[in-house]
Amino acid sequence: MKEENQNDLMDKIISLAKRRGFIFPSSEIYGGFSSSYDYGPLGTELKYNIKNEWRKEMLQFQDNIVGLDTAILMSPKVWQASGHLSAGFSDLLVECSKCHHRFRDDMVSGNKCPDCNGELMSARKFNLMMKTFVGPVEDDASVTYLRAETCQGIYLNYENVLNSMRLKIPFGIAQIGKSFRNEINPGNFIYRMREFEQMEMQFFINPNESDKWFDYWVEQRLNWYIKLGIKKENLRLHQQTKEELAHYARAAYDIEYKFPFGWKEIEGIHNRGDWDLSNHSKYSGHELNYFDEKTKTKFTPHIIETSAGADRSVLVFLLDAYEEIKGGRTQTTKATKEIETVLKFNSKIAPVKAAVFPLMKNKEPLVKLAKQIYQNLKKNFLVQYDEIDSIGRRYRRQDEIGTPYCITVDFQSVEDKTVTVRDRDTLIQKRIAINNLVDYLNQQLEL
Amino acid sequence: MKEENQNDLMDKIISLAKRRGFIFPSSEIYGGFSSSYDYGPLGTELKYNIKNEWRKEMLQFQDNIVGLDTAILMSPKVWQASGHLSAGFSDLLVECSKCHHRFRDDMVSGNKCPDCNGELMSARKFNLMMKTFVGPVEDDASVTYLRAETCQGIYLNYENVLNSMRLKIPFGIAQIGKSFRNEINPGNFIYRMREFEQMEMQFFINPNESDKWFDYWVEQRLNWYIKLGIKKENLRLHQQTKEELAHYARAAYDIEYKFPFGWKEIEGIHNRGDWDLSNHSKYSGHELNYFDEKTKTKFTPHIIETSAGADRSVLVFLLDAYEEIKGGRTQTTKATKEIETVLKFNSKIAPVKAAVFPLMKNKEPLVKLAKQIYQNLKKNFLVQYDEIDSIGRRYRRQDEIGTPYCITVDFQSVEDKTVTVRDRDTLIQKRIAINNLVDYLNQQLEL
Repeated sequence: MKEENQNDLMDKIISLAKRRGFIFPSSEIYGGFSSSYDYGPLGTELKYNIKNEWRKEMLQFQDNIVGLDTAILMSPKVWQASGHLSAGFSDLLVECSKCHHRFRDDMVSGNKCPDCNGELMSARKFNLMMKTFVGPVEDDASVTYLRAETCQGIYLNYENVLNSMRLKIPFGIAQIGKSFRNEINPGNFIYRMREFEQMEMQFFINPNESDKWFDYWVEQRLNWYIKLGIKKENLRLHQQTKEELAHYARAAYDIEYKFPFGWKEIEGIHNRGDWDLSNHSKYSGHELNYFDEKTKTKFTPHIIETSAGADRSVLVFLLDAYEEIKGGRTQTTKATKEIETVLKFNSKIAPVKAAVFPLMKNKEPLVKLAKQIYQNLKKNFLVQYDEIDSIGRRYRRQDEIGTPYCITVDFQSVEDKTVTVRDRDTLIQKRIAINNLVDYLNQQLEL
Repeated sequence: MKEENQNDLMDKIISLAKRRGFIFPSSEIYGGFSSSYDYGPLGTELKYNIKNEWRKEMLQFQDNIVGLDTAILMSPKVWQASGHLSAGFSDLLVECSKCHHRFRDDMVSGNKCPDCNGELMSARKFNLMMKTFVGPVEDDASVTYLRAETCQGIYLNYENVLNSMRLKIPFGIAQIGKSFRNEINPGNFIYRMREFEQMEMQFFINPNESDKWFDYWVEQRLNWYIKLGIKKENLRLHQQTKEELAHYARAAYDIEYKFPFGWKEIEGIHNRGDWDLSNHSKYSGHELNYFDEKTKTKFTPHIIETSAGADRSVLVFLLDAYEEIKGGRTQTTKATKEIETVLKFNSKIAPVKAAVFPLMKNKEPLVKLAKQIYQNLKKNFLVQYDEIDSIGRRYRRQDEIGTPYCITVDFQSVEDKTVTVRDRDTLIQKRIAINNLVDYLNQQLEL
């Protein structure tokens, strides 16, 4: 029963996301494509705001972290050094000897094909890297891969960044960008897609300080979600056991979120030791290390990584903000069994910051003043103008997309140059002078 | 002679870009990869700021434009409908019958291979789309392509955006994202890369109004560069002749920039007519049109497109901001033949907004106060702290990366809580109260 409600919630989010312009199925008019999704106008803003908060946190608020933006297509040698082209980064697949469909080994229960009942062959590894060809000849020499993680671009540029930015350990390099994995079983909406966006930061440290910085980053990253409004009870830390650890990791914590489909990872904090820089030194023949001027010693820095999913974050922020109020909560809602939906986004990540309404659309002075206010506000914030339907319905439309403030221009406004500003969460309406509106919103929104 | 100076300028920009952390050759420790580049810490900021200004212009300042962020991997049917898989989107290549190297037909002068002197075969079309494979079986059924332009994602979502956002014509959909073209001859640094980032906006209009909106967008887009500080004399409009027009275009203007390697396109404004929506309607069997409530008529909207390159913009802003002052200009520069370099970025796009210096690094009260100021400013702006070398050298380091303001903490600062703020362009130093510093910078930077 509980599970049913929870699946119901995913369906509601998927439906709301499409209906209100957050997320659309990709290539829909051609029948869709490969569990992939496009961000609609509001989803684009939501994702942009989340990424922007991550950037600000890393590049402004933290000390000694710089940004980087590397290419998706890299030398294929990178993926040999990283281990992605070898057995570690692959799924076990079984193939049907008759219809040649393939299935993940752990998803079939017997030795018969679920599709045609043919004989299944023995399991073999299937690599998750996506291949492409660069240059005028389509042969092995020009094969490369779409990156499977953004962090490799950071390791490759370690020395260029270190030197050009005159950095001293400890320092970090942060990057946001797309990665690609040919997952056999993508799913759960935007939780697992073949094309996805990562927000990764690599923190380069003295090996003596790994425990200290590992603990620091676990705490910092968990707090980031809480600061942006995610409910504490929906977040937990999971320490990976030795059996769970990836080949490169010495220790790892997952930040997990309580999704409708279970507790699942949204971010990993990993102590990668010297694995990455040592391997790239070995494979490239170019020594990647650090000279400490104080102690006059040379060493390979260790790395603490924080690796978050931008798409997963979007899903987390949507789910966590979602609230239904049965029977409605505003005086304008008819006292029926109607359900009112509110997305209680933190104002920093809300796609639209405010909406401006004239009380009635057929009263010229109200419309004129409302449009003036809208034109003025949109120099500062992303705002919407709406004059269709009753004020109550307009409030509900904005609540459903999580707009923190609604501004109504009424007859009094024309007289005394004030408007009502209605708060999405408290429903309190304050009268504010039009001249003070930008300052008032700036203060309330805390952008 | 003039050409030599100009090539010299590209070399200087490429060298500065690497040395100061703007742009690095990609996969450099593995010998580089395919004319591709990575953005270093300052290049990442510069590009982010340019994209952010484009977003603000489109989504906030203009009327009735919404954002979109679609997947790089789409249904391959999209590229059949768009014409990219047919002859139009390809280069003519000749192959050597002996070494099988390929060359662009217009780049070889005879019928002998420039590499091995073997016989060249007759020219054939080579498609520019990059192929990849999605799903567990690597056969034709799972072939798709990395998108060659972002606008196709906009056309596919036309109806979803229209409905979810309740839009009325004229309206626009704007998108920033990566595209990929298997260019035979990439080159000129980041001007032509196989992996590149586009900033595209599609404006959907009533066919009767195409001339009006076409003119509007040509003017708007040209002004955007000028507003952000690009010198007028380095920009020009080129109207494409009938022979130059792409298959989809009815009319087109290129915005060209005077690069060291000649006048080259940085943005195109195209009247695409109903080509895109009509073709996708035909190929998908899903009718894409617009119902006008006023006139009760149904029609296929026409599209005015503005298509700019984000990487090209980065190069334009770098080149245009670059100035050399022979003999230096600050009193601290020795009166030798030393050349001082300044990047005169508009403050909106400057990577670092301000730098904070203690006058001397061995005076504890100065260092402490400077670090306090730095910690406080970085909540608001991207700022740097620097205590190494003389003040003069620190000014020059900041000038070279285009930082608009340098803040120095001297002995007077400890006494009266004021600092000097030095303007990159006028070199004027003002004493400002530390308490007013954030307000002062906000006012000066006009972010």
